[in-house]
Amino acid sequence: MTFLALDILKSGVAFSMVCAVLGLLFAFFLIKAVIRLSAGNDRMRQIAGAIEEGAKAYLKRQVVTISAIAAVIFVLLFIFRDKFTAIGFVIGAFCSLAAGYIGMRIAVLANTRTAQAASQSRSAAMRVAFNGGAVTGLLVVGLALLSVGIFYTLAKHWLGHDMAVKSLVGLALGASLISVFARLGGGIYTKAADVGADLVGKIESNLEEDDPRNPATIADNVGDNVGDCAGMAADVFETYAVSLIGAILVGALTLGSYPAAVIYPFVLGGISVLGAVIGILFVNISGGRPGTVLMGAVGASGLVSAILYWPATHLLFPAAVTIGGIARSAGDLYLASLVGLLMTGVVVLITNYYTSTRYAPVRKIAKASETGHATNIIAGLAIGQHATALPVGFIGIAIFLSYHFAGLYGIAIAVMSMLSMAGIIISLDAFGPITDNAGGIAVMSNLPKEIRGITDELDAVGNTMKAVTKGYAIASAGLAALVLFGSYVEELKAHYGANHRTYTFDFSLNDPKVIIGLFIGGLLPFVFTAFSMDAVGKAAGAVVREVRRQLTAKPGILRGEDTPDYGTCVDIVTKAALREMIVPALLPVLFVLAVAIIKPLGPVVLGGLLVGTIVTGLFVAIAMTSSGGAWDNAKKYIEEGNLGGKGSFAHAASVTGDTVGDPYKDTAGPAINPMIKVVNIVAILIIPIFF
Amino acid sequence: MTFLALDILKSGVAFSMVCAVLGLLFAFFLIKAVIRLSAGNDRMRQIAGAIEEGAKAYLKRQVVTISAIAAVIFVLLFIFRDKFTAIGFVIGAFCSLAAGYIGMRIAVLANTRTAQAASQSRSAAMRVAFNGGAVTGLLVVGLALLSVGIFYTLAKHWLGHDMAVKSLVGLALGASLISVFARLGGGIYTKAADVGADLVGKIESNLEEDDPRNPATIADNVGDNVGDCAGMAADVFETYAVSLIGAILVGALTLGSYPAAVIYPFVLGGISVLGAVIGILFVNISGGRPGTVLMGAVGASGLVSAILYWPATHLLFPAAVTIGGIARSAGDLYLASLVGLLMTGVVVLITNYYTSTRYAPVRKIAKASETGHATNIIAGLAIGQHATALPVGFIGIAIFLSYHFAGLYGIAIAVMSMLSMAGIIISLDAFGPITDNAGGIAVMSNLPKEIRGITDELDAVGNTMKAVTKGYAIASAGLAALVLFGSYVEELKAHYGANHRTYTFDFSLNDPKVIIGLFIGGLLPFVFTAFSMDAVGKAAGAVVREVRRQLTAKPGILRGEDTPDYGTCVDIVTKAALREMIVPALLPVLFVLAVAIIKPLGPVVLGGLLVGTIVTGLFVAIAMTSSGGAWDNAKKYIEEGNLGGKGSFAHAASVTGDTVGDPYKDTAGPAINPMIKVVNIVAILIIPIFF
Repeated sequence: MTFLALDILKSGVAFSMVCAVLGLLFAFFLIKAVIRLSAGNDRMRQIAGAIEEGAKAYLKRQVVTISAIAAVIFVLLFIFRDKFTAIGFVIGAFCSLAAGYIGMRIAVLANTRTAQAASQSRSAAMRVAFNGGAVTGLLVVGLALLSVGIFYTLAKHWLGHDMAVKSLVGLALGASLISVFARLGGGIYTKAADVGADLVGKIESNLEEDDPRNPATIADNVGDNVGDCAGMAADVFETYAVSLIGAILVGALTLGSYPAAVIYPFVLGGISVLGAVIGILFVNISGGRPGTVLMGAVGASGLVSAILYWPATHLLFPAAVTIGGIARSAGDLYLASLVGLLMTGVVVLITNYYTSTRYAPVRKIAKASETGHATNIIAGLAIGQHATALPVGFIGIAIFLSYHFAGLYGIAIAVMSMLSMAGIIISLDAFGPITDNAGGIAVMSNLPKEIRGITDELDAVGNTMKAVTKGYAIASAGLAALVLFGSYVEELKAHYGANHRTYTFDFSLNDPKVIIGLFIGGLLPFVFTAFSMDAVGKAAGAVVREVRRQLTAKPGILRGEDTPDYGTCVDIVTKAALREMIVPALLPVLFVLAVAIIKPLGPVVLGGLLVGTIVTGLFVAIAMTSSGGAWDNAKKYIEEGNLGGKGSFAHAASVTGDTVGDPYKDTAGPAINPMIKVVNIVAILIIPIFF
Repeated sequence: MTFLALDILKSGVAFSMVCAVLGLLFAFFLIKAVIRLSAGNDRMRQIAGAIEEGAKAYLKRQVVTISAIAAVIFVLLFIFRDKFTAIGFVIGAFCSLAAGYIGMRIAVLANTRTAQAASQSRSAAMRVAFNGGAVTGLLVVGLALLSVGIFYTLAKHWLGHDMAVKSLVGLALGASLISVFARLGGGIYTKAADVGADLVGKIESNLEEDDPRNPATIADNVGDNVGDCAGMAADVFETYAVSLIGAILVGALTLGSYPAAVIYPFVLGGISVLGAVIGILFVNISGGRPGTVLMGAVGASGLVSAILYWPATHLLFPAAVTIGGIARSAGDLYLASLVGLLMTGVVVLITNYYTSTRYAPVRKIAKASETGHATNIIAGLAIGQHATALPVGFIGIAIFLSYHFAGLYGIAIAVMSMLSMAGIIISLDAFGPITDNAGGIAVMSNLPKEIRGITDELDAVGNTMKAVTKGYAIASAGLAALVLFGSYVEELKAHYGANHRTYTFDFSLNDPKVIIGLFIGGLLPFVFTAFSMDAVGKAAGAVVREVRRQLTAKPGILRGEDTPDYGTCVDIVTKAALREMIVPALLPVLFVLAVAIIKPLGPVVLGGLLVGTIVTGLFVAIAMTSSGGAWDNAKKYIEEGNLGGKGSFAHAASVTGDTVGDPYKDTAGPAINPMIKVVNIVAILIIPIFF
């Protein structure tokens, strides 16, 4: 039995490592394929070069800032925890950054090639953009599987299973903390540049989007990459790694004696890398409407996973296992994994409904724009709140079913299978900034109208894809955080039981401390997003001042006789974003530490805090990202010529909605995902220090 | 001992009844005093008459609609519960409506008299408006104390203590359900009329606020009364009655053998009626800035209560009592009651900070208006979210302290002492619509500029007072709901224990059912407010169509040659408000019933739902009402001549913020208070039916 168990263990992890490497090799192949394409004419290369340079400059400085913070945390972990947790932290932080960095590098190469390919056909352009995005998708899942797998295997070899699992929390912290910074920094950057460029460019100087005379236009295009590509990649890398680690923790806790429990999440992840590769191939061989092809790829990818999960589950669990006092068959576990796959599909469809120009919600906002700015805003805010109902309802159903099938482990498996879809989902997401940039390059290079028509169409599809990914990211983050809360309770029980003899915490809603914790935790997403929006406002103000300065100093810019200095705008927004991200990013850590340190609060209030943050965080994040996506596409819908089209009163109102939606959907809302997990992971880590 | 106990019981309730009657007599005296004043010239009387007529017409139809719904519930309660609960329901519903109705009747008499008194002096005008509002304040506390006191005494006489306490839940339901309808109906009415009048009047036809040529202007003024006066009165009546009943329930549960526990909340309420009377007299003898005088009245009122609570507490609790296994002295209970008084002060000061034109938040929004509509909105949304931090933090501290002093009973006492301040707080609130209307009448009657200056100044103070009351209402509602959740758990324990032998519910956060409940409950405020905002949008659309129709049919209206038909606008918005309030008002009831009926959910999920609704409801309500108040006063701040003043670009942006804030602060946000309590009370009521 032990031999067989060990055999499964080794071959299971090995299998997933092979899949991960395969995915990374395929990503490498895609990079080669993209680079081989023509980058267009001189003007296009020049613009793409400026974007690339700006993006690299930002990321370089972000790495420096984050490294300084990471170094402090590394030392703290080294002193207060142990060296393996500290090393895990560095690995997690590094891989999270790397996934975003490499993905973004290829995105800024793919943008001009997409614009160039648009001169051939819509399909060709779509494939270039998608393949560029797919690199990020494959990097996220490949690096996450490899880093967790190798670290776990080595740590297990040196420290034994228990300590290995504990050290993994360090890796999770590294991934999470970096992704909060990446998300916030990137989010503030992209929206400060966007809002700043729009405020002076569109409103004061009557310039079109992406007009090369606007000094902030390159910064705006850089922003798409550092926010939507690098930021989102770090975010989902983090959720993936944390979900995998959470599933390992829960598997070890509930089925400690049965090694397959720890291997199963790896295997699910490995299989879905294959699913993602098939999905990517699907896009490269299919024709038709871009939106349909991309949704088809998600379907194909999910189907492959669903089929292959079946034999894998039966192989790992040949006999029933006991979880929560009930015998669970392989069939039960398989059903739990299906819950995750189905949740992915459901969330994708729901978000698509609320943010696509083809359905009622976006059209309702567009219609409300006819009566002015205020009614556009009210309609958008209401739609965002309505949009929380179905995802949260389905999350409730998913929790119920997966728990029904296999207890807390079932929830962990459902989360892992949901996250395993990240390979294909992130491919869709990174498609967004590439097409957005391609459109920008097409406008700035004065490419023919047909080409700009194609890039515009792809951009609208990209908008919906970005919104869809955000829905997926927050729903999976909510579920992952619940698994982490379960780990917090188990860790606390183990630690407290060992050190204080009695452990009587039941986290009951009858306990006022739990209620106080729920309130404090519930507060966090509200103040966190408020600070994030303030940060965008401040950084955007810096951009506005710089653009105004340039336009005043060189009046020739607006007449097209003088070139603006794009670099200073990029520089200013880089500095502002990195400066402004610090306060909101540290907020969750400070909240947790404060509750842990202030004596009358303690572990029970902290438990309530974790759940409170998940509950309100989920709603705030979904409402913000949905409103934002819907406002953006309501504007697009009007710009397509509906309700008076561009230049109409309704259009002006829809621009207001879009601008309000910018920090909502691209800064504050999505940054809640990693924030929720930082809170949970920091809480787990400080248990032995404070309690 | 029994004799002494009975003695205390009788004299305690008798004392509070005497105080209540005293308060009502003083209200009667104020009514007489207000009516005696001059109602101004013919034009003023005519306009005030139109407002009065519109308000009466609305309330009449509202009574008919609500009565139909109440009749159905009465029958259901009669069949599924018992006749005393059903009778209690009718009494609660009737008194809730009566407090709002009478208060509103006197408010529509005070408005024109305030405008007339402004021709004498600012102080005179302020006193008339305040005394008119004070009628509502005294009615709310007087009727609540009397209805609960008499019903409890009679029911106890006929049914014994246990059944009397149970039947009180019926009275609470009556008060709550009616107040949801009154809040929503009034809120939709006032904002539909306001937004509708603004959209066509200000934006399309360039009319000033309250221009008599606008056919919707009377409806707008009617709205102030049915929303801010009648709606708020019903809301706080409900919170008061529910808190009193909650304290009785908890007192009976934790200190069943000690009658003073049930009497204490009555006595606190009675004392504070005296405090309110002193506060009202304070306003009538003081001079100075209106804002300062009104805040001084709150201070005087609180001080009187704080002083008189001390001997009363020691008289009722001559020896220590045991709560939660710990002996509590009269000093402990007194401290718990002080927590409630202090919370009132703290919440009033915080809300004042976030919504007054004199502090940073409002000025920040005003400043953000300079860069346009979108930045105004972003700033306002961020301020609303920031504004949640301090109140929720203090609520946490209040829960911690009052629980520390006397367990769950301590929380109930703190809530009751907080609510006991309602007499003076509601006086401030009703001051708002009276001064608002006085301003409207002054404009429509072309009174001299000086008079309009005075009414404008009082109107701005009234704005802040309305916001302050909303902060108070939601904070106290959150605390009251926690007491109700405690009652739910105790009721469930008693019922389930008796019927199913085992009772093992611990409502632990480890139980996925609790998490699912928190999610479902957390969802409720989001969809409830979304539906409420939709309702305003639809009703406002009806107003817009009617105004456009009149202006097209009679072009003379805009030239001032033809009189608009105010009546049809009043009629249309009345019907629309009553129609649109149904869906959101039934939502909380449906949620609770669905969770109770769907088998796999049941009592534990329902418990989670109750807490989830409180947690997110508190944040959503505070954020919405604070944003709304701040937007409104940011506009006022600019209109005072700052940042370019009226007609500037910043002013246009601030009008957008104000319009977005309208449904936020006057419809959706405040309606969350009664909604939270309906959810909790319905849950308590259905325990014996479904579990």
